[in-house]
Amino acid sequence: MAFKFQINKQLRFNHRADLLKKADANRPLIHHQTVNGQALVKLTKDSTKLEKISAKKVGTMDDLANKKLTRDGKVIIDFGQHIVGQFKIHIAHTGSPMDSPLAFKIRFAEMPNELAHQASEYDGWLSKAWIQEETLHLDQLPVDLELPRRYSFRYVEIDVIDSSPKWQAVFSNPQAIAQSAVDRPTVSAPQLKDPLLKQIYQVGINTLHDCMQDVFEDGPKRDRRLWLGDLRLQALANYATFNNTKLVKRCLYLFGAMTTDDGRISANVFTNQGYVPDDTFMYDYSLFFISTLDDLLQHEDDPEILHDLYPIAKKQWSYIQSYIGKDGQVETDENYPVFVDWSNEFDKTSCGQAITIYALRQLIDLADRASDPDIATYRQQLQQLINYARTQLFDADKGFFISGVKKEINIATQVWMVLAHVLDDEANRQLMQQTVDQLFPVKGIATPYMYHHVTQALFEAGLNDEAIKLMKSYWGKMCQLGADTYWEAFEPEKPDFSPYGSPIVNSYCHAWSCTPVYLLKKYC
Amino acid sequence: MAFKFQINKQLRFNHRADLLKKADANRPLIHHQTVNGQALVKLTKDSTKLEKISAKKVGTMDDLANKKLTRDGKVIIDFGQHIVGQFKIHIAHTGSPMDSPLAFKIRFAEMPNELAHQASEYDGWLSKAWIQEETLHLDQLPVDLELPRRYSFRYVEIDVIDSSPKWQAVFSNPQAIAQSAVDRPTVSAPQLKDPLLKQIYQVGINTLHDCMQDVFEDGPKRDRRLWLGDLRLQALANYATFNNTKLVKRCLYLFGAMTTDDGRISANVFTNQGYVPDDTFMYDYSLFFISTLDDLLQHEDDPEILHDLYPIAKKQWSYIQSYIGKDGQVETDENYPVFVDWSNEFDKTSCGQAITIYALRQLIDLADRASDPDIATYRQQLQQLINYARTQLFDADKGFFISGVKKEINIATQVWMVLAHVLDDEANRQLMQQTVDQLFPVKGIATPYMYHHVTQALFEAGLNDEAIKLMKSYWGKMCQLGADTYWEAFEPEKPDFSPYGSPIVNSYCHAWSCTPVYLLKKYC
Repeated sequence: MAFKFQINKQLRFNHRADLLKKADANRPLIHHQTVNGQALVKLTKDSTKLEKISAKKVGTMDDLANKKLTRDGKVIIDFGQHIVGQFKIHIAHTGSPMDSPLAFKIRFAEMPNELAHQASEYDGWLSKAWIQEETLHLDQLPVDLELPRRYSFRYVEIDVIDSSPKWQAVFSNPQAIAQSAVDRPTVSAPQLKDPLLKQIYQVGINTLHDCMQDVFEDGPKRDRRLWLGDLRLQALANYATFNNTKLVKRCLYLFGAMTTDDGRISANVFTNQGYVPDDTFMYDYSLFFISTLDDLLQHEDDPEILHDLYPIAKKQWSYIQSYIGKDGQVETDENYPVFVDWSNEFDKTSCGQAITIYALRQLIDLADRASDPDIATYRQQLQQLINYARTQLFDADKGFFISGVKKEINIATQVWMVLAHVLDDEANRQLMQQTVDQLFPVKGIATPYMYHHVTQALFEAGLNDEAIKLMKSYWGKMCQLGADTYWEAFEPEKPDFSPYGSPIVNSYCHAWSCTPVYLLKKYC
Repeated sequence: MAFKFQINKQLRFNHRADLLKKADANRPLIHHQTVNGQALVKLTKDSTKLEKISAKKVGTMDDLANKKLTRDGKVIIDFGQHIVGQFKIHIAHTGSPMDSPLAFKIRFAEMPNELAHQASEYDGWLSKAWIQEETLHLDQLPVDLELPRRYSFRYVEIDVIDSSPKWQAVFSNPQAIAQSAVDRPTVSAPQLKDPLLKQIYQVGINTLHDCMQDVFEDGPKRDRRLWLGDLRLQALANYATFNNTKLVKRCLYLFGAMTTDDGRISANVFTNQGYVPDDTFMYDYSLFFISTLDDLLQHEDDPEILHDLYPIAKKQWSYIQSYIGKDGQVETDENYPVFVDWSNEFDKTSCGQAITIYALRQLIDLADRASDPDIATYRQQLQQLINYARTQLFDADKGFFISGVKKEINIATQVWMVLAHVLDDEANRQLMQQTVDQLFPVKGIATPYMYHHVTQALFEAGLNDEAIKLMKSYWGKMCQLGADTYWEAFEPEKPDFSPYGSPIVNSYCHAWSCTPVYLLKKYC
């Protein structure tokens, strides 16, 4: 799975003060909750868990307070749940006077298997700076140590580098200050009888909760920013659960306020130090600005945001015109790639066509709300795009949509054609049934993001049993492997695989994977 | 060189509020001076320097500000002088938006050779926590980073763990905030014509300056506390240079205020978090409380401190009575060891005898100042101790003092007998001349502390040329090897030797080595 970093230094971005002001006005109040350390654990072999490693309880917090740690002394504290927030702990010393500083390493892990890997082993393309570990020197004890940075974790490993031969360190009262833009108790879960579905739902809630911060974050461990494609799914999951529409509006205003001077919306925005749009652009993500705005307005009418952001949604559409041929064929290039999934093992050309249709349907809804006379043109274009798909991309003999010059038949293409409703409902059902029969089991799809679309296409085509089966085998599998929150990347056929070369930089709480909470509420 | 940590948990210490208040009243105002980074350097082979490594200039601070550093990028900043203090630097980023934290390691070194060693190699008995390195993660740039801890350094190595493929870190304007209880310009150096002696003197001044902090510190890198034996030498060097007698008084009050409930003075006191006496005791160090008090009063009369601390000085004397036999023989044991030097390669029994005589002479001076009638007893004891030394420890045939059951003849014994003036001046001269002729070159002595006493004994016996020769070959050798300040331990016959297994924990600025400034002023 190659990934090409986009570096576009020459870009100029608008910073529309009026829209940024509205983004600020929708800034959430962050809720804080203190969580006490629950247990001391150690890593053990467990063939049922991720990387065959689980955390076994070996002591209590009282046991921790009774431990005298010196050179190479180590403990792992389990907080019993996934947390995004800060960490604090009381540290004292016992023995002779403190004739040296205390030095220790502290590592934060979302999953037990991360602790089986060392930072020194990692040499992948993602920044090593994301590895959640610190080395601390304390010149004075006792201290109530409160680390200034935010971490994403359930497990905290403390590894004493050294005290001195004359004294030992005593750690006690570890606490996490968990934070989120939303309160967990406000959610009313659907009535699910199946215990695995119940668990799938709950882990989804945990994931969404922990990613809802000052914006909808992608992954609180490592990708602490707002991505547009991910925002779309998080917003849908949010409407079905916490229903914090202000946070969605804030995010839409942020994207809308900072387009390039040629009108494009950046694929993501940094918000931890001012508001900074990234110099990365993706064709499908830009179009999902239209979708996300329309999804919001379908959920909650808001003439103000329609007035403010519809022109920007239109602009996305007008920008992509150069990629649409006269016959209605969509052809993107590598400067404006179609993402669809982390995997590059399948051809994405026809996904681009379908996503264009999917977004245009929502643009037409927005145009209708805005009483925009351009709606007629949009409707014409929609027909043209659909016609091209039906006549040029559908292989009637095989009963599948094809993609690219090699006329590849892949799952993603069928899925997006179904979601775009290029065919009628009965044809959609047939297409997905045939996809299940001939193309399943799913292989070579790397992300819950794409698995979401496969599952939704099954629901959308009326194949609810197949949808539930897939959900159980995918999100359920993560649960069985020990997930407290869902992961950025997961291929059930190779569960230990990391796209980055080491699980130490994997994101095991990633927003785009939380969608079972949306799908279960909408379709079950 | 073995070292046995003393751990005496059951001890009770007095904390005399009246004396601690006087220690506080003499607390120095710390002077701060901003020092800019001078050059970028790299390590090069240089057979004339310590561990055959020197630092070669490869750039300016402007070059630093123009460097774009990313994964594994490294620079070494040279401040051009040894500094005790804090470090600050401006860090910005260049390139795309900062899509990851910046992680880097920062190492502080007093000497270039330290940077050729890695913390991971070190497994000695001294705490690893002393190793001067930090690993930092910065979530936001630009920043004016000011590290909260104090370091002892000339060189600062910055080693970028990672930025990201999209941006680079830019470091600029490195500054040190040097601190000391004294101002360097207040010292008037003696007129020395010999350039090597001039350099020896200047490096001594630098050493003393950097060790004069909130107390006389032993070594600002790693042994940041007040040791009594070292205080004695620092105080003498201080009278000959900065002449800050308040700091000496503060230190004497600290020792005097916190004796054990049986009256002993601890060998050292921690002062960085309240005042805490260590549970380590050394026979000679306790007696040097008497010496240091008497040295002070010989330099500056002060009836108040005499009144306050003479009773505590007397108490040290009375405590050691159990170690003095009826015939005047001193025999200590391992519970109250005689230090003399880091080296355990020579017998220290007769050094104990001589140091007892040395201290008793100064106790008699104090008794005289205090008009204490016990002076008569002290004078009797002095004769007895001297008689024992002259009759039982001096081998008239060989013309040397012997030590221990094996009647060992070693340099340290002759030296301390001369310093204690057990023989008359002419006999002292003969003894030291014979020591030079038969026992030199000095071998197996590990510290400048003991070399100081050897050199002083040569001066005291009138062998000034030999004293200067030794000073040049010892302190001069450190200068030639690249010392900016003098070292805790140095054996010229094996210059690269570290008592701790790695130079990474060596202290290259250590108070007890600064005494050429005292000897050159007193004897030249």
